Amino acid sequence: MSTTKTYRIAVIPGDGIGKEVTPVAQAALEKAADGVASFTYENFDLGAERYLRDGAILPGEDLERIKGTDAILLGAVGDPRIKAGILERGLLLKLRFSLDQYINLRPSKLYRGVTSPLANPGDIDFVVVREGTEGLYCGAGGAVRRGTPNEVATEVSINTAFGVERVVRYAFQLAMKRKKHVTLVHKKNVLVNAGDMWQRIVDKVGEEFPQVTHDYLHIDATTIFLVSNPSRFDVILTDNLFGDILTDEAGAVVGGVGYSASGNINASNEYPSMFEPIHGSAPDIAGKGIANPTAAVLSSAMLLRHLGFDEAAAKIDRAVEADIAELGSTKRTTEEVGRDILARI
Amino acid sequence: MSTTKTYRIAVIPGDGIGKEVTPVAQAALEKAADGVASFTYENFDLGAERYLRDGAILPGEDLERIKGTDAILLGAVGDPRIKAGILERGLLLKLRFSLDQYINLRPSKLYRGVTSPLANPGDIDFVVVREGTEGLYCGAGGAVRRGTPNEVATEVSINTAFGVERVVRYAFQLAMKRKKHVTLVHKKNVLVNAGDMWQRIVDKVGEEFPQVTHDYLHIDATTIFLVSNPSRFDVILTDNLFGDILTDEAGAVVGGVGYSASGNINASNEYPSMFEPIHGSAPDIAGKGIANPTAAVLSSAMLLRHLGFDEAAAKIDRAVEADIAELGSTKRTTEEVGRDILARI
Ligand SMILES: CC(C)[C@H](C(=O)O)[C@@H](O)C(=O)O
Ligand SMILES: CC(C)[C@H](C(=O)O)[C@@H](O)C(=O)O
Repeated sequence: MSTTKTYRIAVIPGDGIGKEVTPVAQAALEKAADGVASFTYENFDLGAERYLRDGAILPGEDLERIKGTDAILLGAVGDPRIKAGILERGLLLKLRFSLDQYINLRPSKLYRGVTSPLANPGDIDFVVVREGTEGLYCGAGGAVRRGTPNEVATEVSINTAFGVERVVRYAFQLAMKRKKHVTLVHKKNVLVNAGDMWQRIVDKVGEEFPQVTHDYLHIDATTIFLVSNPSRFDVILTDNLFGDILTDEAGAVVGGVGYSASGNINASNEYPSMFEPIHGSAPDIAGKGIANPTAAVLSSAMLLRHLGFDEAAAKIDRAVEADIAELGSTKRTTEEVGRDILARI
Repeated sequence: MSTTKTYRIAVIPGDGIGKEVTPVAQAALEKAADGVASFTYENFDLGAERYLRDGAILPGEDLERIKGTDAILLGAVGDPRIKAGILERGLLLKLRFSLDQYINLRPSKLYRGVTSPLANPGDIDFVVVREGTEGLYCGAGGAVRRGTPNEVATEVSINTAFGVERVVRYAFQLAMKRKKHVTLVHKKNVLVNAGDMWQRIVDKVGEEFPQVTHDYLHIDATTIFLVSNPSRFDVILTDNLFGDILTDEAGAVVGGVGYSASGNINASNEYPSMFEPIHGSAPDIAGKGIANPTAAVLSSAMLLRHLGFDEAAAKIDRAVEADIAELGSTKRTTEEVGRDILARI
């Protein structure tokens, strides 16, 4: 008789290739956790199709049901037929904010077998700890005299000591398990209010972690180092917008966002955390069955690790590493990559 | 008897390597314009040394004198002994804003002879047209309960149709002289107020330029393309902060910010425009005489072009191109590079 605990997983495939890669992530989850945990899945029909059909983006009852689950697997959100911002703000960011997923965790690793666009990439293995619930993503802003020559549009970045301190502490704790170095990235020479607060909180929390060194880089300089010397990074700690920008550049540097997963984590466990590839819905290749499901599969490893199943997560990571090392440069369909990775789990 | 007009140039060497590269830029200016224009120079003792000596950052009388000049050559601003933001906001940004330098023009070109960190860089030759007087750089923001656990720090991005339209029109005009393509970069799926205004104004102004095509990219996706396919760009049009970030990444991709110059342009000529390398004061190598003056020299070519001396500017550009092609990979001092470039002008 099985004594494994059963977890409820909300599955939101979303749009475009999100629908193609999410089933592969689920299959990997199942196989890796076999014998240690069981899952029941609740599928949510959210995203562009749903919105175009009945105008719903994230109905209250869906959000309540999602709140009752143990974790969320998300594919991708975004569709060219829909005005920019509607699904992003109404669905993806609404989830991150409503579920207080204040840690946006984004590892970047150059796998053996992947060709980086850099001539001399070196060993790349760092994690971006991006704040997930503040900054310019708050939706505070507006416009007056819209559409006239006198229009003024504002965007307000709201940053709280409460919100910054919890992500700073998380970054230092993570660094303790890694190479013990934190790099704060901001633009404190221009954004003096927010930047100064981030720096003061890093300095203060840093004192609790005497074994962890920390330094500071401006966002602009960081984009240079990601290209010229990405090996220098261990844990990059930054705000919501800078984290968005840096992780895409980092994805490019490690050979494509197809290898980059992310966790939107409520580290205090009041709400479920959400795991997703960092790539988007990729309308240009959607429906062709050629999207690389690796990032989605890696996000299911992050989900397992979050639930405490380190060994099951490591199985997926090892399977992905072996798959890429051997077959990374061969052209395969979504199904083929899924089959090859699954065979190794 | 010479009939050349004399121009008054304000020279602000500033900090660190700014002091070492600016004289080289001046020498190049002199030589290239010989016979077509004359210059008188007014040196301004502004930057870290001055601030540490007497607390002055940009005294009103200096600003008034600068307003009376025809153009400004700036070295670099920033010093590790001074809290981030003081000189940047008080001197560099104060100049850009007071002189209404609303076009921040930043060409990126991969010169023959320069090794890009990219394995397959392709032909890189684009210009970033960065808005220079709005957005998050306005200094609108503040903090409450500073230093307490309840601190809230804000940064406000202010964007006006007036400010956006003039830079959009400039970008389209520039594209007409180039490959006739404009890429708007923003984050309109999150920053919906400002992003939507930028897009509407681009669409409207674009109609005046039927020969110029335009498309849109999110800032995060743009950081990917700068690494994976920088050749796709012609004119990149973006806001103040995104322009800051992209041009540093672009500098890295073309082999280092040592080859990247910029113009802070008041295109309506009410105030002098200002030309500077995009690199900073580089405290780590300052005082050693090894800073590469190429970007500063290229900024004097931009100054000449701005004043209408296209042929003199082209002389500098050609000299730099020839110098890099032949000697780009040899280790030289600031003086040696200066001497080599000057010999070719
Ligand atoms: C789709 C978009 C709102 C989102 C973001 O900006 O956070 C995406 O780019 C990401 O990085 O997850
Ligand atoms: C020094 C700093 C204020 C400045 C900026 O952010 O504009 C610099 O990075 C630049 O790009 O010219």
